[in-house]
Amino acid sequence: MPRIRNLVSVDDLSTAEILELFQRAKEYAKDLRAWSNVCRGRILASLFYEPSTRTRLSFESAMQRLGGGVLTAAEMSSSSAAKGESLADTVRVVSGAYADLIVLRHPSEGAARLAAEFALVPVVNAGDGSHEHPTQTLCDLYTLWIEKGRLEGLDVVLAGDLRYSRTIHSFVYALARFGANIVCVPHRGLELPEYVVRRLREEHGTEPVRADASDLGDLARESDAVYLTPNKPHQLSLFTDARVLRVDRVDAVYMTRAQTERHGDADMASRYMRLSQSAMSAAPLKEAIVMHPLPRRDEIAADLDDDPRSLYFTQAARGVPVRMAILAMLLGCLELSAEPVEHEERLFPVESGVNPCPNTNCITHTEKRHQRLGYKLTSRDPLRAACGYCAQEIPIGLVGCTTTRHFHPRDSAAARKIRPDHLVFFRDEQQALALGFSAATR
Amino acid sequence: MPRIRNLVSVDDLSTAEILELFQRAKEYAKDLRAWSNVCRGRILASLFYEPSTRTRLSFESAMQRLGGGVLTAAEMSSSSAAKGESLADTVRVVSGAYADLIVLRHPSEGAARLAAEFALVPVVNAGDGSHEHPTQTLCDLYTLWIEKGRLEGLDVVLAGDLRYSRTIHSFVYALARFGANIVCVPHRGLELPEYVVRRLREEHGTEPVRADASDLGDLARESDAVYLTPNKPHQLSLFTDARVLRVDRVDAVYMTRAQTERHGDADMASRYMRLSQSAMSAAPLKEAIVMHPLPRRDEIAADLDDDPRSLYFTQAARGVPVRMAILAMLLGCLELSAEPVEHEERLFPVESGVNPCPNTNCITHTEKRHQRLGYKLTSRDPLRAACGYCAQEIPIGLVGCTTTRHFHPRDSAAARKIRPDHLVFFRDEQQALALGFSAATR
Amino acid sequence: MPRIRNLVSVDDLSTAEILELFQRAKEYAKDLRAWSNVCRGRILASLFYEPSTRTRLSFESAMQRLGGGVLTAAEMSSSSAAKGESLADTVRVVSGAYADLIVLRHPSEGAARLAAEFALVPVVNAGDGSHEHPTQTLCDLYTLWIEKGRLEGLDVVLAGDLRYSRTIHSFVYALARFGANIVCVPHRGLELPEYVVRRLREEHGTEPVRADASDLGDLARESDAVYLTPNKPHQLSLFTDARVLRVDRVDAVYMTRAQTERHGDADMASRYMRLSQSAMSAAPLKEAIVMHPLPRRDEIAADLDDDPRSLYFTQAARGVPVRMAILAMLLGCLELSAEPVEHEERLFPVESGVNPCPNTNCITHTEKRHQRLGYKLTSRDPLRAACGYCAQEIPIGLVGCTTTRHFHPRDSAAARKIRPDHLVFFRDEQQALALGFSAATR
Repeated sequence: MPRIRNLVSVDDLSTAEILELFQRAKEYAKDLRAWSNVCRGRILASLFYEPSTRTRLSFESAMQRLGGGVLTAAEMSSSSAAKGESLADTVRVVSGAYADLIVLRHPSEGAARLAAEFALVPVVNAGDGSHEHPTQTLCDLYTLWIEKGRLEGLDVVLAGDLRYSRTIHSFVYALARFGANIVCVPHRGLELPEYVVRRLREEHGTEPVRADASDLGDLARESDAVYLTPNKPHQLSLFTDARVLRVDRVDAVYMTRAQTERHGDADMASRYMRLSQSAMSAAPLKEAIVMHPLPRRDEIAADLDDDPRSLYFTQAARGVPVRMAILAMLLGCLELSAEPVEHEERLFPVESGVNPCPNTNCITHTEKRHQRLGYKLTSRDPLRAACGYCAQEIPIGLVGCTTTRHFHPRDSAAARKIRPDHLVFFRDEQQALALGFSAATR
Repeated sequence: MPRIRNLVSVDDLSTAEILELFQRAKEYAKDLRAWSNVCRGRILASLFYEPSTRTRLSFESAMQRLGGGVLTAAEMSSSSAAKGESLADTVRVVSGAYADLIVLRHPSEGAARLAAEFALVPVVNAGDGSHEHPTQTLCDLYTLWIEKGRLEGLDVVLAGDLRYSRTIHSFVYALARFGANIVCVPHRGLELPEYVVRRLREEHGTEPVRADASDLGDLARESDAVYLTPNKPHQLSLFTDARVLRVDRVDAVYMTRAQTERHGDADMASRYMRLSQSAMSAAPLKEAIVMHPLPRRDEIAADLDDDPRSLYFTQAARGVPVRMAILAMLLGCLELSAEPVEHEERLFPVESGVNPCPNTNCITHTEKRHQRLGYKLTSRDPLRAACGYCAQEIPIGLVGCTTTRHFHPRDSAAARKIRPDHLVFFRDEQQALALGFSAATR
Repeated sequence: MPRIRNLVSVDDLSTAEILELFQRAKEYAKDLRAWSNVCRGRILASLFYEPSTRTRLSFESAMQRLGGGVLTAAEMSSSSAAKGESLADTVRVVSGAYADLIVLRHPSEGAARLAAEFALVPVVNAGDGSHEHPTQTLCDLYTLWIEKGRLEGLDVVLAGDLRYSRTIHSFVYALARFGANIVCVPHRGLELPEYVVRRLREEHGTEPVRADASDLGDLARESDAVYLTPNKPHQLSLFTDARVLRVDRVDAVYMTRAQTERHGDADMASRYMRLSQSAMSAAPLKEAIVMHPLPRRDEIAADLDDDPRSLYFTQAARGVPVRMAILAMLLGCLELSAEPVEHEERLFPVESGVNPCPNTNCITHTEKRHQRLGYKLTSRDPLRAACGYCAQEIPIGLVGCTTTRHFHPRDSAAARKIRPDHLVFFRDEQQALALGFSAATR
């Protein structure tokens, strides 16, 4: 039996697979009603631990357009979970015979990965807290790809709340992966977080450069724009001149709403950026498509709705063919010729028995009964690790070795020699001692 | 592409279309399981902003019996709407690719019309506040038509709360349109409202005549019955005698529950009219079928349930074939030979920018983000206008002209000369002045 | 037209039917996706008056795997019921044309029987208060049957809360009916109730014998085990010796969670029995399968999850093929060769007009509008009767005869002569007199 494929993160798909799925979605989109034999007899279960009508209906529509059946549990938090059942148990039951694929929405980060470990069928992450929402990201990429014919080298403006928007962070990584240039035009105070910029640099070689966005007019008036490009600075100096850093042609403006529930600033709404006909009249935006993950509030004025560049409703509609392609593939009803990702990210056990993840909203903290712990080694030197579920960085004071039962400074040579499956992370010496480790004598 | 047909109001269908839909429903009803190819591959989305299990299940059953798929959002008010999304946006997203038809239930009057303006697929009104619920009305007519073989000239008793029941008002207009006679037997104090009677007179020529309902016995004992007939009084005197106004043969009794939540009289329930075997034993009711829109409380005694004249459960069951016919038609899977309504009612823009609709529960007031305004001219002389969404009459103190910027008395000759798309309505002079209009000098 | 079959109680199916359904379920389970033509065109309605995602999804999956459609009303208590509609009316409407079968979950005991009396289509009881949940019981039996190849003569340990668990009581009766031996290993204080033991004795001849469970080790350490066997004591002495009562080989351990919501002892959870690898290492448990109705909390340790004897998730998964067989049969899409139960249990009218059922959670008390009353005569001598809906025993002080209008002592010869349909039950003389009966003069 082939291994079960999941879609917990965009990284679960190879770049070639994504492009092949897009080709397939494009076929599906030609006539959405012509594919009702693709998944006939298969059943999708929507397990939603927090409400999200849009996402749920999009998946359920995709499955029905493929001819499959749908089981809906739109209010999981008030039923099974209320009876004290663990996510692991729920997923094992539902994947036993009820459904052939699970679409999971959960408020805790890392929930989808946990579910995938226990499920007997593929799991699709439809949003786990503020962690990932890969199908949303793929739909966004798809719209760019369809409209512009490519992803590499596109110039994409990200506007608004770049700090707290999960959608933006996932989209940024994906754009970098596909070689697009990113122009950040944040609402003041809501810049892209430092850890996102660092990851872009470390994983994709994307460097931030100060951008001159004065041609963008209203849109960038109050904002310090930053240009993130996969081209190395020396390449910039070789092949381009100073004008490149000037934003003079934009392929897309991706607007996002203020995550008011996150920064607790109710007053924000009134001062928040607003995209309108007037803002979109700047010369570099002439052919820029306007995107938005929806729901919008007032950050896009109604006067843009009929503008041919406004594609936010089309973007939402395209979620259906993209999800059709994803579901068909995961259900084994669509075979891709593209190679899958070579290796899955390895999770190492947490040997100390103490959960090192600092994120209190991580599933490793919120799941009481069938908690799993695991970490990813994101860098050997300097030593850096992340929670295997929510991907948040683990704060490391000291490290220990389960074989020697000694602990060492984080950046010591001794620390670097410990095998990952023997590694233990401590906040401080007190914790190390309490867990029965002693200082290395030498 | 043919224009998108909606069912926001019964008036969206021509009389010939309604009768053809009834014929089709009759075919469907012969074997409900034989039509699963009619809408195969089509998807219906139930968007319910207030709960209504009965109506929702009836539509979803109809769609499934036609072989189509169903997306259910039974708790819209706690999801998308809670995130601040406008109805207009929700409808644009859902109609983009998710669904091929939207069934909408909403607490605000006029919501279905607003939704229809934005949707890319047909919208069916499954109840918008206390405004319209056209499929309910059509199901009621259908039962009369099936049982009595016709609608014209039938004598239909409407009993109970005739004041606050939306169902009754819609049914009354429909009965008048098809030429049926209406015998109002209201619970004391819950008579048919004056504006309903006026509309009956103005649009259908239906005249109220005092009725002698003494033969109806218990049913009409405490009630002042009124007879509403499409026949002009002079015709009554020509072709009939005084006995005609005596209610001596009834085709149907349509009972309705006390809308206790509307008149806030909890005590009402105990004194409310009650239809029982004894009440139905009066001679003129011998062949009268008993109808009720359900749910009932105590206004129909259980001893009537097994009476062959009791058709309320059958009436509910017939909602399925009638809705099947409506869905099949709107989805383009059933072509009618009947001519559609010739012209849609024209909506004129509200030029003042101030919402003249007096109904605080109208969607023009409750929808904050993508509000639309528009009015219908219901009468030129005297000048009368209604909200284009909830149909409630607009109170007119003065009228203005957007070209001359003058205002005039409502019933003046000058007022009558203003073109509808230049007309502005003011409550009073103060409002007119505030909006920059001045008194006509001449 | 053949009479409508319902599944309100396991007793609605004959033993031969159950075994034939199991054979059919086994066929279905070979490839769950191969049966999508069995119920094509049929519609199931899930009417859930209290939430139960697991049960609902299991039924809905079964129906979809058979190719049928599903209507879901997962929150009935907040919709129709809130509008004051009776269960009887709701069921009459839904069964009119909406659905071809109703799956009902309701918090009141006896609700499913009431629904079955009014519905025009088959009703499946998916749990009525703490009364019955027959498909759960059948799934449990099915797992035993599949794993052990038979039911008769099996030794099944029931562990945990045997007092308050509905599932356990239903399972116990079913095991007795199929001739299995039951070893009760209750949590201290949560023994099988006396009335269950009495019914086992009276209906199945099952006798309780003190068991020596010392070989079970940890599992039975704090518990007074009881052995319930369908073999008569004299048979035991004939064919077995004292060692038989020693529990030395167990076929299955059925663990159940503490019904903390029932005995109001929050502290219980921490002291509750816990099944783990260590408990399951006792010699007699070597080939015992581990079962649990789920959801579990902590009563089964995670270390058992990967043990091949652990079948609780498989048991849940098997709910789908078993329910497929049941639905197919009730919908008339699967014809059994087995004979049905010969006669339905007779319900006699309650002539006094006073509801004699002592169970305040019985549907006869909670249903206000279309209440039905009826009783079953469970024993003639001594005179014993049970509520016809919730099956709870009726407390009888005196009995009356509606013909003579006299009352008599419960155990008198006169009482025994009264025909069941003339019988009236009184708590005491005062009630009898108040209802117009007088003491028998002789």
